[in-house]
Amino acid sequence: MLIRDAKKGLTDDIIKAAKNEGIDPEKLRRLIISGQVSMPKNLGRDFPVRAVGSCMSTKINANVGTSKDYDNPEGELHKARVAVEYGADAVMDLSTGKNIDAVRRGLTEEMSVPVGTVPVYHAARKHKKVVDMTSDDMFNSVREHAREGVDFVTIHAGINRNSISRLKKDQRLLNIVSRGGSFTMAWMLYNDAENPFYEEFDYLLEIAQEYDLTISLGDGMRPGCMADATDRAEFMEIITLGELVSQCREKDVQSIVEGPGHVPIDEIGMSVEAMKKLTKGAPLYLLGPLVTDIAPGYDHIVGAIGGSIAGMYGADFLCMVTPSEHLALPTADDIREGTIITKIAAHVADTVKESQKDRARAMDLEMSVARSKLDWEKQYGLAIDGKKARHIRETRMTTSEACSMCGDLCAIKLVKEALENDRDE
Amino acid sequence: MLIRDAKKGLTDDIIKAAKNEGIDPEKLRRLIISGQVSMPKNLGRDFPVRAVGSCMSTKINANVGTSKDYDNPEGELHKARVAVEYGADAVMDLSTGKNIDAVRRGLTEEMSVPVGTVPVYHAARKHKKVVDMTSDDMFNSVREHAREGVDFVTIHAGINRNSISRLKKDQRLLNIVSRGGSFTMAWMLYNDAENPFYEEFDYLLEIAQEYDLTISLGDGMRPGCMADATDRAEFMEIITLGELVSQCREKDVQSIVEGPGHVPIDEIGMSVEAMKKLTKGAPLYLLGPLVTDIAPGYDHIVGAIGGSIAGMYGADFLCMVTPSEHLALPTADDIREGTIITKIAAHVADTVKESQKDRARAMDLEMSVARSKLDWEKQYGLAIDGKKARHIRETRMTTSEACSMCGDLCAIKLVKEALENDRDE
Repeated sequence: MLIRDAKKGLTDDIIKAAKNEGIDPEKLRRLIISGQVSMPKNLGRDFPVRAVGSCMSTKINANVGTSKDYDNPEGELHKARVAVEYGADAVMDLSTGKNIDAVRRGLTEEMSVPVGTVPVYHAARKHKKVVDMTSDDMFNSVREHAREGVDFVTIHAGINRNSISRLKKDQRLLNIVSRGGSFTMAWMLYNDAENPFYEEFDYLLEIAQEYDLTISLGDGMRPGCMADATDRAEFMEIITLGELVSQCREKDVQSIVEGPGHVPIDEIGMSVEAMKKLTKGAPLYLLGPLVTDIAPGYDHIVGAIGGSIAGMYGADFLCMVTPSEHLALPTADDIREGTIITKIAAHVADTVKESQKDRARAMDLEMSVARSKLDWEKQYGLAIDGKKARHIRETRMTTSEACSMCGDLCAIKLVKEALENDRDE
Repeated sequence: MLIRDAKKGLTDDIIKAAKNEGIDPEKLRRLIISGQVSMPKNLGRDFPVRAVGSCMSTKINANVGTSKDYDNPEGELHKARVAVEYGADAVMDLSTGKNIDAVRRGLTEEMSVPVGTVPVYHAARKHKKVVDMTSDDMFNSVREHAREGVDFVTIHAGINRNSISRLKKDQRLLNIVSRGGSFTMAWMLYNDAENPFYEEFDYLLEIAQEYDLTISLGDGMRPGCMADATDRAEFMEIITLGELVSQCREKDVQSIVEGPGHVPIDEIGMSVEAMKKLTKGAPLYLLGPLVTDIAPGYDHIVGAIGGSIAGMYGADFLCMVTPSEHLALPTADDIREGTIITKIAAHVADTVKESQKDRARAMDLEMSVARSKLDWEKQYGLAIDGKKARHIRETRMTTSEACSMCGDLCAIKLVKEALENDRDE
């Protein structure tokens, strides 16, 4: 187990990850021991770890998975490959189709990035109705995924009687929009029972210890619209998640905390800072945040606006949003687009994160030097998506060495000449 | 002239604009008199005015115009129509092609939004070399544009000996990237002369008074990369622009101040607040700001990240950036995409601007209510781009009333049923 190994000293994984992050391995080791950095990797899998958390570069996750309407596991594996090709640091399988095992098994066999799942989807699919699953189904699904090599699992343990009573008191427009959260709430209300993952969290930790499975504490109370954001139900859940983080740490289980959804732009800073504080600096994994509800078809961009700001305030791990959010299961093209744009948000965050800014700014500087020299090949090479940049410029060619926007009136050229002539005099 | 009329009392334009903004006409009248709001409209043109500035909704501008490589005025007029169809509040003609008059004349004849130009482009094109234009050419171009009905002109009067000396002292990587700024600097250095627009600013104001032409004070020192951002040359120019705003106000000439370009995400707030302070609250018109240099092909999104934050801090007017920024002259599709995405940034800003947030949030709420009812037609109707939203959902159909992402496992449906059953008991 990573935390236990780290307590003894440096490991190869820690040394390699520290190198990738450009930080001191000893510092990384201490951050892992304190629980501020996680490096999800199942004991049964082997791939280059990625460090997620304080002082690390901002990571991004891509969601794939079948649905009842689009039940093609091979297509979902293709999407996962596209996401990793374009820079995803992790992939989650959210399958709810008929063959619920295929994508997960394909991913754990093939992917060289951490693979995550939401075992409650699997448990729910074992019965015709979600409410008919048993608490054994829930824990067995976790164990099954862990045994197969899954590196991190989302567990909605913050949905409990306490947070649901807050939700009912402080009525929301969209109540719960987290799918796993909705399963849990529906199950609890129907069976008049506490959430097994909350009630028997210790049992979950025993399973996690066996495989060094990272627990990603799901935000079942994630707000589904601007009007529901940052309310008492959400904070009640965060308090619970913070307590569960402490329990994970006591058992040397790696943890991550999930958050946001829809958040007004001026509440992002407060929301991120509060989550970091209440969870004692746990690695923070955010969806979005989406800063408006009125742009379906563009929610990847809305999420990049929110994600950039959240990253600036300390979010560590951004879950990509695609153009089809709120509308449909994404296509492979949507996944590519979503990955690139989330990567941009992560980079923007890194340009201002104290421990990452020098490295991130150096990338911007290198691009600008290439731009000042009108060195187009260099620019394509440094671009987040050089293929698209090349395509735009080359399909609208120019007779000048600049581009077709200004041609011979390129400001960069004009000023360079003017300054050179000025110096000659 | 608007300011002089406003000093006498309410006008029809002020009453209509106040209604559009959802604010008190008397308040708008005071903001116009103080110079904190401008409503660019040439005395020779008639169209519904748009109010730009403090307490107003965030406006957006689209740039069109021919270049040497793509010299097709009809195509540029088409782009302007696309921009307005998708919500642009103003259009600027930045033509530098051979027939430099065609687009401008087409726009002032046809557009029912404010039309802006950069007369120095026109002046520069009167000679083979930019440095050969005369100061008469510069002022005559302004007069010609004003006479033809142009509503606002960008004047790079902040490029002067003072700001250029700062630029030389505090060496930049990309020096000047503003095209008009580069013409001005090249001209000044070559002719060893002060900038005529700065030196004879009073003469410019006389022309402006004749037509109620709004002066948009260009940011020739706009930084062209992250490394050059927010430096002494830029602040020197802002100080000058602030002084020129005061001169405009003394002569009842409407003014706008232009700013940013490339700015690190954590400097946007400071930059916007400083500009607002140093210009005594002049309407602030920003390009971007672009928060990274490494995403050519996606600069419209990079600009929306920066624009949303700038708007939150008080920017009033966002100039759209298209996917082809830094690479090529945009296509009509680029203009459509850029307009929609800039519109999203403007809306996000409005959700937190004190005087606009109630109206903006009501739009988000209405969408979320439609979402909670799974009322898809209503959602398409309320979306910033309903056509795209409909296309995404309808090309990936579902057998459920929800969408193909979750199908029968839609969280909204599940929770609604669970809560209803719970209440029944």
